[in-house]
Amino acid sequence: MHYTKQDIDQMDKTTKIITMNSASGIKPGNLIGSISKSGITNLAIFSSVVHLGSDPALFGFILRPTGEVPRHTYENILETGYYTINHIHSSFVKNAHYTSAKLDKTDSEFNNCGLTEAYVTDYPAPFVAESNFKLGMKHKETIEIPLNGTKLVIGEVEHLIVPDDMDPSVNLDAMDSIGISGLNNYYKLHKIAEFPYVRTKDIPDFSKIKSL
Amino acid sequence: MHYTKQDIDQMDKTTKIITMNSASGIKPGNLIGSISKSGITNLAIFSSVVHLGSDPALFGFILRPTGEVPRHTYENILETGYYTINHIHSSFVKNAHYTSAKLDKTDSEFNNCGLTEAYVTDYPAPFVAESNFKLGMKHKETIEIPLNGTKLVIGEVEHLIVPDDMDPSVNLDAMDSIGISGLNNYYKLHKIAEFPYVRTKDIPDFSKIKSL
Repeated sequence: MHYTKQDIDQMDKTTKIITMNSASGIKPGNLIGSISKSGITNLAIFSSVVHLGSDPALFGFILRPTGEVPRHTYENILETGYYTINHIHSSFVKNAHYTSAKLDKTDSEFNNCGLTEAYVTDYPAPFVAESNFKLGMKHKETIEIPLNGTKLVIGEVEHLIVPDDMDPSVNLDAMDSIGISGLNNYYKLHKIAEFPYVRTKDIPDFSKIKSL
Repeated sequence: MHYTKQDIDQMDKTTKIITMNSASGIKPGNLIGSISKSGITNLAIFSSVVHLGSDPALFGFILRPTGEVPRHTYENILETGYYTINHIHSSFVKNAHYTSAKLDKTDSEFNNCGLTEAYVTDYPAPFVAESNFKLGMKHKETIEIPLNGTKLVIGEVEHLIVPDDMDPSVNLDAMDSIGISGLNNYYKLHKIAEFPYVRTKDIPDFSKIKSL
């Protein structure tokens, strides 16, 4: 099936949202934890966390237009300057999904969704105790994307909390971290391959071995 | 294990790169196809494609500092204004990985990595014939990220080429699209759950059913 720009423009709105949310492939499933100046915690599911660099260790996430709905996560980040990124595992994928409900700001998703706040000394934002891979972030910059009113919110890693026996290359299979597609589909991950860094001289002759 | 900012700053450089490239969780595996003004095609693996919006349908990807190494993909995008995003499936994951070799600009990764160029009428950029989910993009804007010299390259979907029987919600399991973690780990995806859009009144009482 081939949809041209004209076909896409004429797509039913819901179909378009569902399809386009799935079109980049699998997305990481993370919970972003934050806290307001008055001490009310917030937890929200995001599938748009993206690695921007390793030294300094920078990650971004995409925030939809702030006018549309209340953005407690971002309000808290602006108030305190800090937030956490926590991998979602299959054991609490349903709890994580329910953080997408629109609660009042005075209601914490931690309490309402059965997840546990965890803290480290001298760092204000709440981590998710149930997550085995947690990043404590310091907000560095927000970049506006005028094309559609979204923002790229960028932070630097100040805390990394992982299992003691974790390999640096992080087996997401063993870790049981999940992926998301579209708005509401969750996937387990099964590692199938690990290939070496590619030097040009190492490229196999694909003209002879088309299928590997 | 708890690494503070000081620990992270002192991490061995390779360990830091490997760990931080894995820290956002699973990443989508896509091949970006492009062509130079003089007609030489290029194909490159990217794990940073991110959905920015559905109407208009916008996707971004992260480009590392252009000074570091030749960036043929981006040079081509600037020359022609167009590029394609193609899901990687497990059947050609090794071919896809080998596009990361540093070939001369006159050598196309399509030929060298055993993948096939496909075109649609009046659209210049090459698609990957082996991919079952292809997006034809028009470059809209590049946003600089001064913090570390990366760029967010943004395009709008002008062509969507998918299987005839595809459900709009795109089962990545059935589609056999793969995910990436770190720099060189590839994962198959197994769908485990699909949850409804959450209204606040639908939140289960997690205080009674902690584990779901």
